[in-house]
Amino acid sequence: MKKQQWPVEDVRHWLEPGPVVLISSRWQDQDNIMTLGWHTILEFSPSLIGCMISAGNLSFERIRNSGECVINLPDAAMADTVAKIGNCSGTNTNKFETFSLTAETSERVSAPSIAECHANFECRLYDDAMVERYNFFIFEVVAARVKPKPEWPQTLHYTGDGVFRTDGALIERRALFTKVS
Amino acid sequence: MKKQQWPVEDVRHWLEPGPVVLISSRWQDQDNIMTLGWHTILEFSPSLIGCMISAGNLSFERIRNSGECVINLPDAAMADTVAKIGNCSGTNTNKFETFSLTAETSERVSAPSIAECHANFECRLYDDAMVERYNFFIFEVVAARVKPKPEWPQTLHYTGDGVFRTDGALIERRALFTKVS
Repeated sequence: MKKQQWPVEDVRHWLEPGPVVLISSRWQDQDNIMTLGWHTILEFSPSLIGCMISAGNLSFERIRNSGECVINLPDAAMADTVAKIGNCSGTNTNKFETFSLTAETSERVSAPSIAECHANFECRLYDDAMVERYNFFIFEVVAARVKPKPEWPQTLHYTGDGVFRTDGALIERRALFTKVS
Repeated sequence: MKKQQWPVEDVRHWLEPGPVVLISSRWQDQDNIMTLGWHTILEFSPSLIGCMISAGNLSFERIRNSGECVINLPDAAMADTVAKIGNCSGTNTNKFETFSLTAETSERVSAPSIAECHANFECRLYDDAMVERYNFFIFEVVAARVKPKPEWPQTLHYTGDGVFRTDGALIERRALFTKVS
């Protein structure tokens, strides 16, 4: 199902709930993928996301050098792939090939998007002031695409120790939300 | 049920999945509570958590001045309270009284813990270098307490537009986790 544009200022809809994401990157024609659970929304517009990318990851220098990545949102059916991607290194594994993932051309960045994921958020490095001290990258989302269905996919939330939790029921409380956000 | 100590270096078990939390603070004998969905784990040890606390919140200056807060984890049964807390201001509301919440004495900080929440993470401001530019506070968790049951409570994950999502089933993939974390 063809993905549709999603407003970059509303990326919080997908990332604020705290799912595990797959970060794809490209540097000197080499693609890589890593898993990430340590991220937060920082601002609606510009659409800013903070990500703690451990310096031990191959992706760390590649993202820093290229100044780009894509945050891809896997659904719960991809749990095995997500776990495996997080437990091998791009130094000796081509993760797109090994895990039969499709490297799709992105719109605004050279890093590839993962076609199989529910959503793709293309990012440019916005501020690296906290990278030295905390490995904390602040990205701006410059393009966003989401599969139109399902409207509420189950995603994965990592708790450590090899255990994910999936999403459950919705609780709608619109009437109580009198403030804007 | 009496809460038990939880290792501060494993706070990620509760916060990495991305739940909405309630931040309690105390400044000049005034207590306040705010809701927060924009947070991330930054380090296991010291146990660091980054929180984007909008400067528009009364809590912003209070937490900055006192250098302390408690991150409280509400469960899904508290959805109404969470929504209401996020949609009123401490300038004209005593939120503990209004929402019948119990301000429990904390162990290591003067800010009160919310007794009704599933877990309490007492925090000290660790680094305010990103507060001016991004309203981003880096806290160290100095004490953690968790209710012994349920082991896997349903928490709330905010998606914007008045809609929360709760936690669903567990997906256990320990055998695939060959790396430490």
